[in-house]
Amino acid sequence: MGSWQLPSIAFSLPDWVCRSLPEPGHCFVSDEEKMGLAIELSRLNVLHATGGPFGAVIFEATSGRLVAPGVNLVQYLGWAGAHAEMVAIAIADKRLGKFDLGDNPEIGYELFSSTEPCSMCMGCVTWSGLRRLVCGASDQDARAIGFDEGVKANDWVAQLRSRGIAVQQNVCREQAVSVLNAYNDHGGLIYNGRASTASGGAAS
Amino acid sequence: MGSWQLPSIAFSLPDWVCRSLPEPGHCFVSDEEKMGLAIELSRLNVLHATGGPFGAVIFEATSGRLVAPGVNLVQYLGWAGAHAEMVAIAIADKRLGKFDLGDNPEIGYELFSSTEPCSMCMGCVTWSGLRRLVCGASDQDARAIGFDEGVKANDWVAQLRSRGIAVQQNVCREQAVSVLNAYNDHGGLIYNGRASTASGGAAS
Repeated sequence: MGSWQLPSIAFSLPDWVCRSLPEPGHCFVSDEEKMGLAIELSRLNVLHATGGPFGAVIFEATSGRLVAPGVNLVQYLGWAGAHAEMVAIAIADKRLGKFDLGDNPEIGYELFSSTEPCSMCMGCVTWSGLRRLVCGASDQDARAIGFDEGVKANDWVAQLRSRGIAVQQNVCREQAVSVLNAYNDHGGLIYNGRASTASGGAAS
Repeated sequence: MGSWQLPSIAFSLPDWVCRSLPEPGHCFVSDEEKMGLAIELSRLNVLHATGGPFGAVIFEATSGRLVAPGVNLVQYLGWAGAHAEMVAIAIADKRLGKFDLGDNPEIGYELFSSTEPCSMCMGCVTWSGLRRLVCGASDQDARAIGFDEGVKANDWVAQLRSRGIAVQQNVCREQAVSVLNAYNDHGGLIYNGRASTASGGAAS
């Protein structure tokens, strides 16, 4: 038989992420404060040259405590799946030791994403057990600078809601868009998993 | 400032996977042979109790050589994102050292999935640079035993094709469905990232 040796997958967030978070005991008090951190991570990710302008943070809804941050690490890790939301969900699952963040109805977890999730990340939100998704910049804002959000059903918001996931859009949208536009204005790479095809790079 | 310590993410395929593959030099000659391996991995994943009945394999289209296998490892790893296709893409990216499998038009990579990808995996296919997606069991077959494929646009096949990704469905479908049905008949867990909501578990 064969002698296959397949690689392990291993990754961590860049060191700057932990240094950019408030103290572990800090309780976030509003949607705007929570989204502010997601957007700040999107900005810092570009500044530190560790990825595209996308940040995401998972919070414990009841207490406002931060559970897991994420940033886009596609180029940094060389992995197409390393969008901000995917990274945040992976870290939350690891920290909490479970694949279902919705298994305890007493504690609801919520994801704040600096830009509306692409098809992949929206799918992972569906499976994650997260109870609420809050978005900054819109799908259209990402597409406006050349990122592609992928194949999404037009009624994805209604379909997530019908699965018990609350969705809120356009929280601090202008602030989130300003990071996208600054990235684009400074010639940031619209990285692209389909280099030889027509359309743009993947968000988010 | 804070004293955050966030976990690293690390995983490998279960040991049985490498032992179940043909020799590394083997060239697969037909779609049926390639799909046969994806389905066999889905069957063995249940047999070895490492996850749900879903397998996926990435091949180099030109040579027929195997690049990366994947199986559903959601429960095994405790990570909602560990669907078979996501795992296969992560391993392919790691082996080849790049996030864009489509960056060399001379070499096309193709993904064989024992069941049509859910919304998350379909999204990752879009970003992966894969040039062809071949599916065994259908969306409906997975839903028929209680798995949920997530929020997918009705025209997802056409939309993937418009992005330069060929899609072929129903390859060895009966064989793939027989594994799904055996799983269900033996009381396999329809694991669910939304335990307290109405609908079923995530495929694939």
